[in-house]
Amino acid sequence: MFRQVAQLPLDYDLFKGHDSIFNWSPAGSIIFGNGAVKKVGSEVKRLGGKKVVVCTDEGLVKFGVAQKVIDSLSDAGIQYSIFDKCEANPSVETVEKVTALAKEADMLIGLGGGSSIDPAKAAAVMVTNGGNIRDYEGCDLFPNAPLPVIAIPTAAGTGAEVTCFAVVTDVEKEWKMAIGGSYNIASLAICDPELTASLPPLFTAATGMDALTHAIEGFISRASDPISDAILAKAIKLIAGSLQRATFKGEFDKDARYDMMMGSTMAGMGFINTILGIAHSMAHPLGAMFGVPHGVGNAICLPVTMEFNLYSNPDKIAEIAGLFGKDTSGMDTIQAAKLAVDTVYELLDSLPIPPLSDWNVTPDDIEKLSEEAMKGGDRSTNPRETTVEDFEKLYQKALTLKK
Amino acid sequence: MFRQVAQLPLDYDLFKGHDSIFNWSPAGSIIFGNGAVKKVGSEVKRLGGKKVVVCTDEGLVKFGVAQKVIDSLSDAGIQYSIFDKCEANPSVETVEKVTALAKEADMLIGLGGGSSIDPAKAAAVMVTNGGNIRDYEGCDLFPNAPLPVIAIPTAAGTGAEVTCFAVVTDVEKEWKMAIGGSYNIASLAICDPELTASLPPLFTAATGMDALTHAIEGFISRASDPISDAILAKAIKLIAGSLQRATFKGEFDKDARYDMMMGSTMAGMGFINTILGIAHSMAHPLGAMFGVPHGVGNAICLPVTMEFNLYSNPDKIAEIAGLFGKDTSGMDTIQAAKLAVDTVYELLDSLPIPPLSDWNVTPDDIEKLSEEAMKGGDRSTNPRETTVEDFEKLYQKALTLKK
Repeated sequence: MFRQVAQLPLDYDLFKGHDSIFNWSPAGSIIFGNGAVKKVGSEVKRLGGKKVVVCTDEGLVKFGVAQKVIDSLSDAGIQYSIFDKCEANPSVETVEKVTALAKEADMLIGLGGGSSIDPAKAAAVMVTNGGNIRDYEGCDLFPNAPLPVIAIPTAAGTGAEVTCFAVVTDVEKEWKMAIGGSYNIASLAICDPELTASLPPLFTAATGMDALTHAIEGFISRASDPISDAILAKAIKLIAGSLQRATFKGEFDKDARYDMMMGSTMAGMGFINTILGIAHSMAHPLGAMFGVPHGVGNAICLPVTMEFNLYSNPDKIAEIAGLFGKDTSGMDTIQAAKLAVDTVYELLDSLPIPPLSDWNVTPDDIEKLSEEAMKGGDRSTNPRETTVEDFEKLYQKALTLKK
Repeated sequence: MFRQVAQLPLDYDLFKGHDSIFNWSPAGSIIFGNGAVKKVGSEVKRLGGKKVVVCTDEGLVKFGVAQKVIDSLSDAGIQYSIFDKCEANPSVETVEKVTALAKEADMLIGLGGGSSIDPAKAAAVMVTNGGNIRDYEGCDLFPNAPLPVIAIPTAAGTGAEVTCFAVVTDVEKEWKMAIGGSYNIASLAICDPELTASLPPLFTAATGMDALTHAIEGFISRASDPISDAILAKAIKLIAGSLQRATFKGEFDKDARYDMMMGSTMAGMGFINTILGIAHSMAHPLGAMFGVPHGVGNAICLPVTMEFNLYSNPDKIAEIAGLFGKDTSGMDTIQAAKLAVDTVYELLDSLPIPPLSDWNVTPDDIEKLSEEAMKGGDRSTNPRETTVEDFEKLYQKALTLKK
């Protein structure tokens, strides 16, 4: 009930010009559509699962979303246990708890944002590989195939339903680790836009800006390729055309919710092959040190870092203006690229994203944040080289936004 | 060394509006770049293969292409046997011969066009499922996972390196069968544009028009979806921008060969989820009854069927004009769609594609050809309903072209 896809190694060229040999990994299979969550039970059964662990959070249990999954599993005669203690920026301890439960199961379901899907993926690695999750920080460092995971996103943001990373926070060290590799992709993503219909504006905006950051950073990445370009350009277009409507029209704009879910999933499909950029390098320490939600961190850092990257990849940034529906006729490349940056500043301005000071980030923290940002792997694919002094200036700018 | 991707069933919606639940299957992994063929030995080894069957044809042996694969396998210490009797429109008997060899192996390599990759994929199914290949005509009709297949295309055309079909000809019944299903995708495609550098103009043009037909029929299919749209639009753009240069500049335009290989692979990645249209319904009986090469049949039928489909999907056909670099400003949708059709007629006109009469197809054969065309599965996703009388008119038009 599963098919074999070659797990690709890392010793190919990351930068994909005509003189390179690169690899391109596909995501898993996807079931997409309003009401798709009802298929989870029959899919588990078809895929040979008998006992699953559903990894989710208390909010999704309280608001009845988890019940939809439970009903479908029950109808299909699947045994299940629920772990509902997933938290934002999921910790090593959470992964350990899920792993303990999953040892009795043959499949995992991650239901939620990255905060639920990432621990499911990390626990799937732990069950078949043992050891400590910290051993697997990096890419393809675990030898055994993880348990199969079905990922069901409840927000249009993370892309974790199709990506090859599980991000886990080491609370003690204030460090977010990526457990990566092509083995670490959910076997199946079930994407149901209706699950996002009642998300409140702030949450919709922050997760949506996370998805937009994936799409834009992947699109302008030094490791871009024609296949990912096609997918990411479409993701930018879908998100640009629907994020404000999804945020402000809430339940009343089903088409906007649909396009946001499609856009965030496509962003994930693209960036697994391009990696990201320095908005992510900046957002990770904001999350690990101050608990700034990942989407808020990315939302604020995205336009700041696009401006910083402008002269390093002007052609691609100029294209983004067109993907936002802007008329760039008569403009040269730099003018169009500047229009793209302004457009993303305006988008951020229009959305109910709180300032970083709401999490008590102050100018005094910039030095430490910048040192941490230098350690992230996404810096290597960013179009412009970035020094610690650059990060200091970028954080200074970020702290002035949304006040 | 393989990862698990859910094999998706067929009981989801084929037509993918916002009110449907559809599935989207990814292709396998891809290694792409000039010189990539040299990686085959190390990839077989990494994936755990010890003994492989290389399925290819006499031309590729004679011109030293097979030797590149053999050298790489030898360097990696992989045992191999060579089957070099693959022919255009591969037959059931060919599949049976490859299957007999593959019973001693743990992996198959298809090196060539569809004529070599399709028998490798079909034999991979036969080794693990037994029976007769005719039993598996259709989708997902075999229960066991096939042997892993590595597909190495030597032309930019078929897309078989990433698609989920193996097309096999039943010579006796003059019928081309598709052995399909998400299990039937190569675990790994190795795409090396340099392998196509010395292909002669006619062959480059015919295989390239095959790829363009995949991209355009997938793009305008009734079963299109946003992910496939993104991939197929890019495929059309790449092929439109490089097919003539690849055909007429031969070895001297490496960029054109690169874009053609990328375009044909992306066309394959897209159409596995959209299926195709009636150019394929028409080309298959031309191949099965008269031996018309698949690319020649598609090349001639593509503009004819686009013209037939124009009013059924004008928006998408209009977009194709833009993907060919045409200026459609000031035009309405129908005008732009007509420009797209004219552009593809002109493209066909410019290429060294022979007329159907070169294979002794005459007006007297139209009735039988049209009856056969009605039986093909691609008709169901074509944007316009097609009757046997429609096919008769379309074949009449096709017979007038390239004279």
